[in-house]
Amino acid sequence: MALIVQKFGGTSVGTTERIRNVARRVARWKAMGHDVVVVPSAMSGETNRLLGLAREVQSVPSPRELDVIASTGEQVTIALLAMAIQAEGLKSRSYTGAQVRVLTDSAFTKARILHIDEERLRRDLAQGIVPVVAGFQGIDESGNITTLGRGGSDTSAVALAAALKADECQIYTDVDGVYTTDPRIVPEARRLKTITFEEMLEMASLGSKVLQIRSVEFAGKYKVRLRVLSSFEDEGEGTLITFEEDEKMEQAVISGIAFSRDEAKVTVTGVPDRPGIAYAILGPVADANIDVDMIIQNAGTDQLTDFSFTVHRNEHAKAMEILQKVKTHIGARDIVGDNRICKVSMVGVGMRSHVGIASQMFRTLSEEGINIQMISTSEIKISVVIDEKYLELAVRVLHKAFGLEQA
Amino acid sequence: MALIVQKFGGTSVGTTERIRNVARRVARWKAMGHDVVVVPSAMSGETNRLLGLAREVQSVPSPRELDVIASTGEQVTIALLAMAIQAEGLKSRSYTGAQVRVLTDSAFTKARILHIDEERLRRDLAQGIVPVVAGFQGIDESGNITTLGRGGSDTSAVALAAALKADECQIYTDVDGVYTTDPRIVPEARRLKTITFEEMLEMASLGSKVLQIRSVEFAGKYKVRLRVLSSFEDEGEGTLITFEEDEKMEQAVISGIAFSRDEAKVTVTGVPDRPGIAYAILGPVADANIDVDMIIQNAGTDQLTDFSFTVHRNEHAKAMEILQKVKTHIGARDIVGDNRICKVSMVGVGMRSHVGIASQMFRTLSEEGINIQMISTSEIKISVVIDEKYLELAVRVLHKAFGLEQA
Repeated sequence: MALIVQKFGGTSVGTTERIRNVARRVARWKAMGHDVVVVPSAMSGETNRLLGLAREVQSVPSPRELDVIASTGEQVTIALLAMAIQAEGLKSRSYTGAQVRVLTDSAFTKARILHIDEERLRRDLAQGIVPVVAGFQGIDESGNITTLGRGGSDTSAVALAAALKADECQIYTDVDGVYTTDPRIVPEARRLKTITFEEMLEMASLGSKVLQIRSVEFAGKYKVRLRVLSSFEDEGEGTLITFEEDEKMEQAVISGIAFSRDEAKVTVTGVPDRPGIAYAILGPVADANIDVDMIIQNAGTDQLTDFSFTVHRNEHAKAMEILQKVKTHIGARDIVGDNRICKVSMVGVGMRSHVGIASQMFRTLSEEGINIQMISTSEIKISVVIDEKYLELAVRVLHKAFGLEQA
Repeated sequence: MALIVQKFGGTSVGTTERIRNVARRVARWKAMGHDVVVVPSAMSGETNRLLGLAREVQSVPSPRELDVIASTGEQVTIALLAMAIQAEGLKSRSYTGAQVRVLTDSAFTKARILHIDEERLRRDLAQGIVPVVAGFQGIDESGNITTLGRGGSDTSAVALAAALKADECQIYTDVDGVYTTDPRIVPEARRLKTITFEEMLEMASLGSKVLQIRSVEFAGKYKVRLRVLSSFEDEGEGTLITFEEDEKMEQAVISGIAFSRDEAKVTVTGVPDRPGIAYAILGPVADANIDVDMIIQNAGTDQLTDFSFTVHRNEHAKAMEILQKVKTHIGARDIVGDNRICKVSMVGVGMRSHVGIASQMFRTLSEEGINIQMISTSEIKISVVIDEKYLELAVRVLHKAFGLEQA
């Protein structure tokens, strides 16, 4: 018998029919003898509807009041889901974040969980009751309602699992697990049975939008076993995200290939190669609240160097404009941009102990005539920036070259 | 400078445009130097939408969970209204029942208010903040969300006014006050500037659906000055419901004429005139949960008497059926029914000190050939049961006979 926290996303509870399906799933886990705590999101579309109302009333809505209104979305689903679970013949009870009490800081619309009182939930579990806890929301020291920001329900579920020392936190979503890459690009892409937290973090931040990255960090920090599952399939064990490499049964070198479109590149050429130059370039960009992803500086010649970085495509024009203004001040020869690029990354903890992954990656791409514009590496990842028109081709040939379609 | 609690019903906050209108009204009261606490209902239609969802999930919805879901309706409006008031350049803050804390008993869906912590609201008022408090909801000792039942927002507003010792509790609704009778029947019907609580109770229970009767009782008990106003008109002082007759400036004998359609009559004829007969007749009716309104027993002859009572028309058939079954047991000659009747009542505290009101009423009706089937009186009211086809005629001639169209 295990204690399991099950989180269901907005599409999984998008209609009352789907809510009844979730209840039946919960009942099956209870019938197997497990204790279950359920964390639903708001019904899909509901949060946007509520925020739309808020914007009709106040052009820049008060963050405190936004949280009061947004939190009602989950409050509706907890009650409906508790009713649906009762309709399955089980005992169930709903709890808002305030009722649990999920204590957060006071950063409205993007609060962080500080502490969870799990006593009440434990009492329910001891009596065979299925507690249904509102995701995404909490309460601050002064009793104000707070929300954790978009996708915060994943974080709520993981934090509850940590507080309850649950055996597993299951995230039910509209995909049935984490894949070696996007199956829409590579039909042979394979669902991973396990993936480590570090790999998942790289996969998530690189554009695999299966889980909120904050919830993965949280799970890693508190050693919560996370599993991603489909809420629309009854079978399937999904993908387990483990915090111990030993738990990972597949010992593939590479776990998957992540990618992100909508990237753009800025290169500052011919800048003096002296201390402080990176700050002189990136300082004004950061001041404009533009997120910078990859940063590369080549060793230069003649005391001159080229400095490149990538930003989201939407912010490319703004970044270029800012640097044009400071071009003379930093003594650069030119500011060159390219907003037709993408990033492809190979991720895998096995990389740590294997040489030759990078060279195999580069060879595979060169055999297809794909020019690599930038390279960045970490312990468990190699990312390359290439022309966006080669994105699908690059992902497909790399997937094949590294045998990712084979279990 | 006064402290005023303003309650706005569902139609008054039915759209974001109307919510902005409410905010502008609040701003005007603040500009006049008053302190204001606002209590909105849910946007019209919202509570029904939520209860509909609940019924899709559970055939007999859990009362506890119904309250969790129903309370979100008001939670949305408090946030929207606080935002709209902020958009008027004022400070405002929303509070759920739990946040205030409105302590109730645990009778889910029909809870009663036990206590209100007003300290937090006072602190806000001292800082010039307009608190916006969710009507209709509270929290019990165990922290469960409760609701007060339909129309409970009026009661919330009155209870808040009592706790804050407010100078006035203003109920904004879609009518601009209490009228001498229904203007749809008597175009000359006149808005009353004042009415006493006792009169209002008689008017409300007799079918003038301006205020929830519980809120009027509450206001009477805690000596809260209540005022009914239109939320769609900027001018007008509405109707003040006073707890002291001295406050009533108009010293008319009769304040208004109330009526109710959908009445039905049951007469048990020729029953033995002995102790216990009323219980023998009404016991089985009460056991079937049928509400009985007027009850009349005539002094009999030959130790036999006739016993009549009225019920709602929907329950007439059931009441007749029950009595047919016990007819032999109670020794009645016959059970006679009539479901084409109505009730017309004249209400006024002035009646206490004036003889002759009843006879004037009866004469007026007889002059129109209207037969009176039953009569019932209280300190401040005379009710007659007549054929339903005479309802409009009776109300019109009485309104004229007692000069109610004149201020």
